[in-house]
Amino acid sequence: MSKTAITPTRTENYPQWYQQVIIAADLAENSPVRGCMVIKPWGYALWELIQQDLDRRIKETGHVNAYFPLLIPVSFLEKEAQHVSGFAKECAVVTHHRLKADDQGKLIPDGELEEPFVIRPTSETIIGEMYAKWVQSYRDLPILINQWANVMRWEMRTRLFLRTSEFLWQEGHTAHATAQEAITETMTMLQVYHDFAKDFLAIPVIMGCKPITERFPGAQDTYTIEALMQDGKALQAGTSHFMGQNFAQASDIQFLNQQGEREYAWTTSWGVTTRLIGALIMSHSDDDGLVLPPAVAPHQIIILPIFRNAEEERLVLEYCENLKKTLVQQLFKENKLRVHIDKRDMRGGEKNWQWVKKGIPLRIEIGPRDIAQGTIMVARRDRAPQDKISMSQSELMAQCVSFLEQIQDGLLKKAQAHYANHIKNIHSLEEFEAFFGKEDNEQAQAPGFARCFIADKMEIADILKKYRVTQRCIPLNNNEYGRCIFTGQENAPIMLLAKAY
Amino acid sequence: MSKTAITPTRTENYPQWYQQVIIAADLAENSPVRGCMVIKPWGYALWELIQQDLDRRIKETGHVNAYFPLLIPVSFLEKEAQHVSGFAKECAVVTHHRLKADDQGKLIPDGELEEPFVIRPTSETIIGEMYAKWVQSYRDLPILINQWANVMRWEMRTRLFLRTSEFLWQEGHTAHATAQEAITETMTMLQVYHDFAKDFLAIPVIMGCKPITERFPGAQDTYTIEALMQDGKALQAGTSHFMGQNFAQASDIQFLNQQGEREYAWTTSWGVTTRLIGALIMSHSDDDGLVLPPAVAPHQIIILPIFRNAEEERLVLEYCENLKKTLVQQLFKENKLRVHIDKRDMRGGEKNWQWVKKGIPLRIEIGPRDIAQGTIMVARRDRAPQDKISMSQSELMAQCVSFLEQIQDGLLKKAQAHYANHIKNIHSLEEFEAFFGKEDNEQAQAPGFARCFIADKMEIADILKKYRVTQRCIPLNNNEYGRCIFTGQENAPIMLLAKAY
Repeated sequence: MSKTAITPTRTENYPQWYQQVIIAADLAENSPVRGCMVIKPWGYALWELIQQDLDRRIKETGHVNAYFPLLIPVSFLEKEAQHVSGFAKECAVVTHHRLKADDQGKLIPDGELEEPFVIRPTSETIIGEMYAKWVQSYRDLPILINQWANVMRWEMRTRLFLRTSEFLWQEGHTAHATAQEAITETMTMLQVYHDFAKDFLAIPVIMGCKPITERFPGAQDTYTIEALMQDGKALQAGTSHFMGQNFAQASDIQFLNQQGEREYAWTTSWGVTTRLIGALIMSHSDDDGLVLPPAVAPHQIIILPIFRNAEEERLVLEYCENLKKTLVQQLFKENKLRVHIDKRDMRGGEKNWQWVKKGIPLRIEIGPRDIAQGTIMVARRDRAPQDKISMSQSELMAQCVSFLEQIQDGLLKKAQAHYANHIKNIHSLEEFEAFFGKEDNEQAQAPGFARCFIADKMEIADILKKYRVTQRCIPLNNNEYGRCIFTGQENAPIMLLAKAY
Repeated sequence: MSKTAITPTRTENYPQWYQQVIIAADLAENSPVRGCMVIKPWGYALWELIQQDLDRRIKETGHVNAYFPLLIPVSFLEKEAQHVSGFAKECAVVTHHRLKADDQGKLIPDGELEEPFVIRPTSETIIGEMYAKWVQSYRDLPILINQWANVMRWEMRTRLFLRTSEFLWQEGHTAHATAQEAITETMTMLQVYHDFAKDFLAIPVIMGCKPITERFPGAQDTYTIEALMQDGKALQAGTSHFMGQNFAQASDIQFLNQQGEREYAWTTSWGVTTRLIGALIMSHSDDDGLVLPPAVAPHQIIILPIFRNAEEERLVLEYCENLKKTLVQQLFKENKLRVHIDKRDMRGGEKNWQWVKKGIPLRIEIGPRDIAQGTIMVARRDRAPQDKISMSQSELMAQCVSFLEQIQDGLLKKAQAHYANHIKNIHSLEEFEAFFGKEDNEQAQAPGFARCFIADKMEIADILKKYRVTQRCIPLNNNEYGRCIFTGQENAPIMLLAKAY
């Protein structure tokens, strides 16, 4: 049996494998601040690439970026009843504006604030307050603004990337003159997220509408993209909310319409977070560590020079530098190739494994013998680590972009096949229990998605809770209705069910 | 007398002019959260361009980005005595982790934390804590990490961009095996800031060492880039700190050196903030509003189509789209030209003035008559608003990049000339008072920089306070020493003095 770089393997223990991949790729770690992670350089480089590509898509759909305050007065939060009840239990509260030394010289809070602030768990209320000032007439609409920011929701049980008290995200907040325009915006951004997940992260996602129990606090409708992880659990990868006029009323965003009448605006918000990095890991990585789709690989090609003495070093490094210069002129998805030469003084085998674990799509080894023979050894991350292809430099030049395209494409196809193999139509409670396991079965595996008629009612969540199953979404363009397997109600929509992160 | 777009003008009231430029260009505004600003899309676009260019320079000098927690346990802050006394008086303190309704239904803080946190005013202590874990041996050094983040320092008197409670910045934090290497790093980043300010923002800055009274709390040496605003006041535009082993000792960052002995690391930190946007405004803008160096202009060229009916609209817009397509192929400083067509339905004159006030380097008007005559009307932001140049499309293509270069270059030269005209060698107290005014003269103008022998001692700050003058820095490569004009001490270094922001 071949040894893998990650212990335990995915089949042995998926949650522990996940933690070990993060350690092996040096992506992030827990900090001494409860629930807050440190995103290390390799993990942050993934976030930077995600930001770059998604930011371009957000701007191409007509949005601009801006920045709003980190702190939100508690009174703002109170303005929308659903919203405050959704977030009050997990807010970091700022109550003082300085520290002073007590009698023992210990620092204690001082300068109590008249009104406490919360660190933004999301920014609808503070942004709404500004929009109310900015919007007077229909001519001021739409407002199409996005913000890249940190937010904080005090979590008791955290997991790196998937659930942390502080996380990074983008939050779009738009205001419109008509309901229809706001709905169109909501769906446009859902589609942007879908395409981004598929084309950039190689993660297939299903678009759908959240059931009422899973709506964003204060939203009229919440739409989601749902991904399926390798272990059969679903993961919500992004959301887009149609707020109706709820937040416009709470923040008093009114405008004079073309008829000269005062109306409340219609608003939306939409966001994705650093959680996407968790989704990325659990979509593609294997028992040797991280596997990165080339689009999101900080280095797409790593060059590993091999030499035993100073003369060989000079020869090999010069060759590598020239190779790199030529490679970076090529384009992958309209960007110049990202190529890195690892010159560190370190055992070749160890070095090679480090880059395997970091998920680099193509590894190239160059030694004096290769140079003499005019060959280059290329290893693809989507093949076994030992599987190396010998080729000439001109063959490499001709094929490297196509290799990267094959890897990007192959990862998506593999994830799509996994999804197709883990979705099942369920017609009865018996089938449901055969799929997900009986009530209170803590050991039950996560089998993937079930498609099933479920009434969109409050009580459903409680029933499903006993099975540790959640309603993920009502897929878009659903035209099927039938009898709810739990309540017997007719005309229940098709709901996607799954155990989930 | 010609009317200007901004009232009051710079000579009438510089501080109010500054506020009015920000309003006219729609850069930012105060928020309902005390001391925190909202950076509006046009202002944030400036920050995005600053980030892009500076981030490239930071990476080219070998640094990588990462992200550390927003919150810092109070006990971390206490570890470095100077540091805590520098920041304790202006910290936002988080004491609770949820809200609950009181008897009247009002939300109050709940879930008191065992140990309070502060929102980072700067991240030396939390980052040091992580570095202590990451560094074991000299092989783990140097660590060269930068972070783009928001920070908070509770300010009582705030001004948009120049001094706000929350601001955006980058903070580099590096750790090294030797003092010399850390000093070299400190100076490298100072030079990066200098070059960035000069080449990108067209702001000439002086590099120097801060006097002891102006050091960053906990630093062994603080270096600064100092800029001179149009009103003769200095502005600190960036700082680079050599920490010695102070923070390594506070955070216990130790490593085994090549001889196998334990040593404390040597650390640095360096940062620039959204304050740079304030510096940008006060370096170049005029009585008609913002003036942007092309490198930092979100649109470098604005195309203003003029038409009176649907047929003209079709004709003119088609011409404008083609013109834009051709223009964006050209390069300015290795980036494609940023060109925008303003299609809004609005009076031409008003539209034109909006873009004047927003500081666009080149404005192009296109109407049916221009198309018929084969001419284009071009207006440069560094000329009078009415001053338009008529040229053919091919002339525009041949000259537009050179126009932008002239504007970028011209703004720098103008700012350099202003600096050269506002720096004076001062040899005595009499000359000092003739330059800055007598003690307690609140009306005294800011005349620029004085170069003057000043002892680098604690008491100097108090003496200068009466004149509302501050020590900006001891310029780099200073070889002149002489008699301090206040204390009479010999061998005092040349100090740059100024009234300052």
